[in-house]
Amino acid sequence: MVKVAQRLSGIEPFRVVEVLKRARELEAQGRDIIHMEAGEPDFTTAQPIVEAGRRALAAGATHYSQAAGIPELRQAIATFYKQRHGLNINPERVLVTPGASGALLLVAALLIDAGDTMLLADPGYPCNRHFLRLFGGDAQLLPVGPEQRYQLTAAIAEQHWQSHTVGALVGSPANPTGEILTFEQLRDLYMLVRQRGGALVVDEIYHGLTYGVAAPSILEISDDAFVINSFSKFFGMTGWRLGWLVAPESVVPELEKLAQNLFISMSTMGQYAALAAFEPATLEILEQRREIFAQRRDFLLPELRRLGFVIPNTPAGAFYLYADASRFTDNSREFCLNLLEQHGVALTPGADFGNYRANEHIRFAFTTGMPQLEQAVERLQKVLAVGG
Amino acid sequence: MVKVAQRLSGIEPFRVVEVLKRARELEAQGRDIIHMEAGEPDFTTAQPIVEAGRRALAAGATHYSQAAGIPELRQAIATFYKQRHGLNINPERVLVTPGASGALLLVAALLIDAGDTMLLADPGYPCNRHFLRLFGGDAQLLPVGPEQRYQLTAAIAEQHWQSHTVGALVGSPANPTGEILTFEQLRDLYMLVRQRGGALVVDEIYHGLTYGVAAPSILEISDDAFVINSFSKFFGMTGWRLGWLVAPESVVPELEKLAQNLFISMSTMGQYAALAAFEPATLEILEQRREIFAQRRDFLLPELRRLGFVIPNTPAGAFYLYADASRFTDNSREFCLNLLEQHGVALTPGADFGNYRANEHIRFAFTTGMPQLEQAVERLQKVLAVGG
Repeated sequence: MVKVAQRLSGIEPFRVVEVLKRARELEAQGRDIIHMEAGEPDFTTAQPIVEAGRRALAAGATHYSQAAGIPELRQAIATFYKQRHGLNINPERVLVTPGASGALLLVAALLIDAGDTMLLADPGYPCNRHFLRLFGGDAQLLPVGPEQRYQLTAAIAEQHWQSHTVGALVGSPANPTGEILTFEQLRDLYMLVRQRGGALVVDEIYHGLTYGVAAPSILEISDDAFVINSFSKFFGMTGWRLGWLVAPESVVPELEKLAQNLFISMSTMGQYAALAAFEPATLEILEQRREIFAQRRDFLLPELRRLGFVIPNTPAGAFYLYADASRFTDNSREFCLNLLEQHGVALTPGADFGNYRANEHIRFAFTTGMPQLEQAVERLQKVLAVGG
Repeated sequence: MVKVAQRLSGIEPFRVVEVLKRARELEAQGRDIIHMEAGEPDFTTAQPIVEAGRRALAAGATHYSQAAGIPELRQAIATFYKQRHGLNINPERVLVTPGASGALLLVAALLIDAGDTMLLADPGYPCNRHFLRLFGGDAQLLPVGPEQRYQLTAAIAEQHWQSHTVGALVGSPANPTGEILTFEQLRDLYMLVRQRGGALVVDEIYHGLTYGVAAPSILEISDDAFVINSFSKFFGMTGWRLGWLVAPESVVPELEKLAQNLFISMSTMGQYAALAAFEPATLEILEQRREIFAQRRDFLLPELRRLGFVIPNTPAGAFYLYADASRFTDNSREFCLNLLEQHGVALTPGADFGNYRANEHIRFAFTTGMPQLEQAVERLQKVLAVGG
């Protein structure tokens, strides 16, 4: 038998992936499943990007490329910050990564010594804590509720900062809640973290997917923070595995060293395709899709409330609703499993996102079309009417 | 200033990537550079694979796929072991990864606790030791020379096994030497490692690229070892970032858990393209390319010997010649830098591969066409005639 490293006991499966796996098995058996579990847009990648990918392949873009990404793409990402946020970001500070996952890996490898902790909101993206544990660190999961719009505040961070705390990692818009940190909240958090000598990492992968308000970037506040971003969500390129990291200039050489060793290169063809993500024709398509997401949220939110789920605030970003289901269950995992197996509705249980009242919460992803959402509401109505 | 984790001081840049970067800069200035530094085939990916990739994109394969790889590809890889080695490998034991780099990341995360070491041959693939250091472990770099055909033997492993040693990681065919471990050598090494309760990891990424002999797989000897492999070298898909890991069945769930958290998914389109790598028409192209590599080796090896480089054995695999250049230099880094800057020949200094007589060694990659190789020999002849 192989001796397995201790860290493995602290790393849990990414449950949403498991739900997805089971949902696919049921589908393979001929069952009709409504997918509201997956954290990815249901849209196929926009045609201009697909076509750029096909052209890159035909042109022979099949070799390794630079470990930090092709220069054109690093420049294009920097330019996007200029267009969207009016910021001048040195493209050398932008590292293309294999998905936001690759960016999280780099940041954790850069910052975490054994015994270090980072402050994370509970609920939050489940893999974050595992990236810390991978390197012998750990997350301080800090319970946040609707009263904080499920976000880590400077006050909470201050209260929980310890000698082994080396920073905070927040998402805005957040998974699983869709909540956005305001400019002031981000600034206060940044000030606190820097004052304590820590690093602030902001997961901005749902930037662009906001409804009625814009999400500020931490880069508007400081060059001395880390941004995780991705081509997966707003740009709809999940299966291409491309993300990026914007880092303080001083640590770029260290990050490049890590990227050279850990990745060698990202998908070369994918990077040439991603250049097309910033073209006006593509951005127009993405804008239309954003509006579709907005419509879905506007339909689903009142419907879920009507059914008895509690969603106190109206989240303005991402494509999730994080619902308090305590009226129906104190075991959301079993509740979700039953909904999937018996009624063909795939949802993600709160336990995937932390511990704080996780058993009473469920994440609804509106990453499926309006007819499916309507059908899901109907199915839920039937179950909950019987149960309640 | 950001506090950087201690591990960073133990992780060096992947120098070959830096040589490549500098070579590209010189080319951008209009210089004619002969590339013998890159560890990737010069051929563009074979057309049937490219076409499959383009079809997959057109068909909308742009979403996430399973964390351990699409089932069809895991099955195709298992089938390949049947065809090439007569082995029945359970496809569940095969995990597709983002390049062999991803497989090394998984194995290191699985096996290495802080303070653990693994036995590695010096010279060897430079990133291996950094994957161990990433997790607080370290490499025991064991000097091997032409008398061991630059390979770790059971005897050397036995001699250096310590209480904190948790296994051995070998490459066959090896980078930078192209040397192959025989069945008996692999078996003896496996027996020793298992007897000591450790894990044996065999990097088989140059399998398929052998000249006159076949390289045995560790899977012919045991199901209880780890194989790292890749679509990059024999299959010529470097820029697609796809590799695989074959693992003992008992640890597959742990590895899947890691893959879910670290990768979420690999390139979906790339995986559908990779299915075409196993088609007879593709394998025929790859076989032709293998023969071209053989011709290049057969040209370059006697030429380098003629010039005064010492290469005692004839390596039977990969696309490298590891040459003792002590007649010309005791500072191979400077020697290589000078050759690149002054004479436009890009080579990799021995220091990239370890410490043992590294300053007297140079790696020649025959990953460029015959005219370029001839030209390189001419350029070298001029320099060395002046210098010697």
